[in-house]
Amino acid sequence: MSRFWSDVVHRLTPYVPGEQPKMDRLVKLNTNESPYGPSPRAVEAVQNAAGEDLRRYPDPNADALKQALATYHGLTPAQVFVGNGSDEVLAHAFQALLKHDAPLLFPDITYSFYPVYCGLYDIPYRTVPLNESFEIDPADYAGEAGAVIFANPNAPTGRLMALEQIEAILKAQPEVVVLVDEAYIDYGGTSAISLLAGHPNLLITRTFSKSRALAGLRVGYALGSAELVEGLERVKNSFNSYPLGRPAQAGAIASVEDEPWFRDSCARVIHSRERLSGALARLGFEVLPSAANFIFARHPQHAGADLAAALRERAIIVRHFNAPRIRDFLRITVGTDDECDLLVAACEAIVGA
Amino acid sequence: MSRFWSDVVHRLTPYVPGEQPKMDRLVKLNTNESPYGPSPRAVEAVQNAAGEDLRRYPDPNADALKQALATYHGLTPAQVFVGNGSDEVLAHAFQALLKHDAPLLFPDITYSFYPVYCGLYDIPYRTVPLNESFEIDPADYAGEAGAVIFANPNAPTGRLMALEQIEAILKAQPEVVVLVDEAYIDYGGTSAISLLAGHPNLLITRTFSKSRALAGLRVGYALGSAELVEGLERVKNSFNSYPLGRPAQAGAIASVEDEPWFRDSCARVIHSRERLSGALARLGFEVLPSAANFIFARHPQHAGADLAAALRERAIIVRHFNAPRIRDFLRITVGTDDECDLLVAACEAIVGA
Repeated sequence: MSRFWSDVVHRLTPYVPGEQPKMDRLVKLNTNESPYGPSPRAVEAVQNAAGEDLRRYPDPNADALKQALATYHGLTPAQVFVGNGSDEVLAHAFQALLKHDAPLLFPDITYSFYPVYCGLYDIPYRTVPLNESFEIDPADYAGEAGAVIFANPNAPTGRLMALEQIEAILKAQPEVVVLVDEAYIDYGGTSAISLLAGHPNLLITRTFSKSRALAGLRVGYALGSAELVEGLERVKNSFNSYPLGRPAQAGAIASVEDEPWFRDSCARVIHSRERLSGALARLGFEVLPSAANFIFARHPQHAGADLAAALRERAIIVRHFNAPRIRDFLRITVGTDDECDLLVAACEAIVGA
Repeated sequence: MSRFWSDVVHRLTPYVPGEQPKMDRLVKLNTNESPYGPSPRAVEAVQNAAGEDLRRYPDPNADALKQALATYHGLTPAQVFVGNGSDEVLAHAFQALLKHDAPLLFPDITYSFYPVYCGLYDIPYRTVPLNESFEIDPADYAGEAGAVIFANPNAPTGRLMALEQIEAILKAQPEVVVLVDEAYIDYGGTSAISLLAGHPNLLITRTFSKSRALAGLRVGYALGSAELVEGLERVKNSFNSYPLGRPAQAGAIASVEDEPWFRDSCARVIHSRERLSGALARLGFEVLPSAANFIFARHPQHAGADLAAALRERAIIVRHFNAPRIRDFLRITVGTDDECDLLVAACEAIVGA
């Protein structure tokens, strides 16, 4: 605490990201990174962006990237907003679109950054419990709301909502922004993009950090009506005109243009996920159905914290959340099959199956 | 305007950066970029960061970069904060350290992003007029203040304050944060870093976009007491845990470690600045003394807007601010000597010397 801090700083409880240990020979399954490298075309584009031109500011509006994303998703560039990772995109959305007098609604179990943003921008919110199967029930999202946000698939559960369920929430809340965080949508889910035409209050956020394997480059984006995007642009241009550097813009464009790599990479992760889920189920784990690049699982005889600690002793890092309802779960990133096999073998040794 | 926007969005007047025209063969002297490329070591480091590892998140705390900057400046890593360009660092500083009940003080003529940040975070402020020579007078910064911010050298004037003058402001305002924006300090000014030891309320911001010729990479930083830096970290970790990607961290570290390149690059710009100032003075321009990589000049017989338009017709872009007191000035980035010669020749043709 310091007398020099503004009031909000005293009140903040910052987000704690999954650790990035600085040691080698670790099976790192804690931050939902892709087990495979990015598109070689993206790598080449980043390399090509590293030259004399770095002395120049990047395009503040990232027009070429917006055009590439618009073309890819069948939208117009005015419906695309880009930022320095989807975390920055979400931050701007909280300030620009989710802050109103009535409370923002989001699930009690979801991306734990959401309440942090509320603290940063002084946004009133109300959490809505997932049902007993850890699913979002659209019926719970009626009533007074300043806005709604949820992730689909949800994190850290991995559970997917059907498009009809999302539409039900949009119909229940046509007067406020409904933000669908699709960080993990590329692993088998159906995007809400097709709902954009009929719902000017729908905003969808996406990231290059998971399915595009570019977490190290920091690129995220949002898709929505031009009026929602304009609100984001106004905040962005009052915060940092140039959020995306030249290497990031170049790499992201090249990634969007490499569809064969993208499809193959996602398919491999989905295949490994199903294999991993089956193996853990055979060890007695309860594994929630996942449409993400991670699984969420608990063992009836072992506390989550104990399991996470025992895995760490075996140089395997997974994510454990010491939070109500989910402290017996582990969130395990889908790695390569070899990494998954190491994890399963370690779990087998620990739970003594 | 949209019913979906939060209140603050309706009130915002976003910052407008200098344009980044998408045309070749332009003499671009409008955004204070370096006329010379970055350190070859920085370029190589960015290239080397482009590979398989891009699938991994970067170090959220950028420890290696903080260590490099701490070593370079003779400070501890806990005194260093890094961000996605100094604009992001400033944004966090406004929210974390400059927002208080009493008004923030800054010069009437300075970086035009400051009042935009105040709008974004609802910070009360009071502008303090520069004197008739466009200088900051420390005596004007006494009295009630929630915090103080000014640029040294100031922008867009280029005028430098002596260290004693900065110390006078620090002594007049020991109970509130005094932020010195040193974006342009490397072109002949003396940094306030030596004052950090005696002033826990002093924060200094810096950028890699000017003297390090890495505007395209987006890296900025702040130096201050550990308690000020902690305030910034708390806001940063409530906004975006990973503001700097892997290429940015790697390139910045390599740049800091290439002192010969840095000294040579700054010296060349300073030499060209003096040459350009002299040439424009000979054409009848009033040129303010500059310690930056730009000059601020006006001609007694020609309106600033007219001069800027006439230069643009000759494919030379400079920055013109349509603002009180300075609308007859042009802010001209110091380019290569060849670019400066083209500018001077164009000015000669326009003013008919």
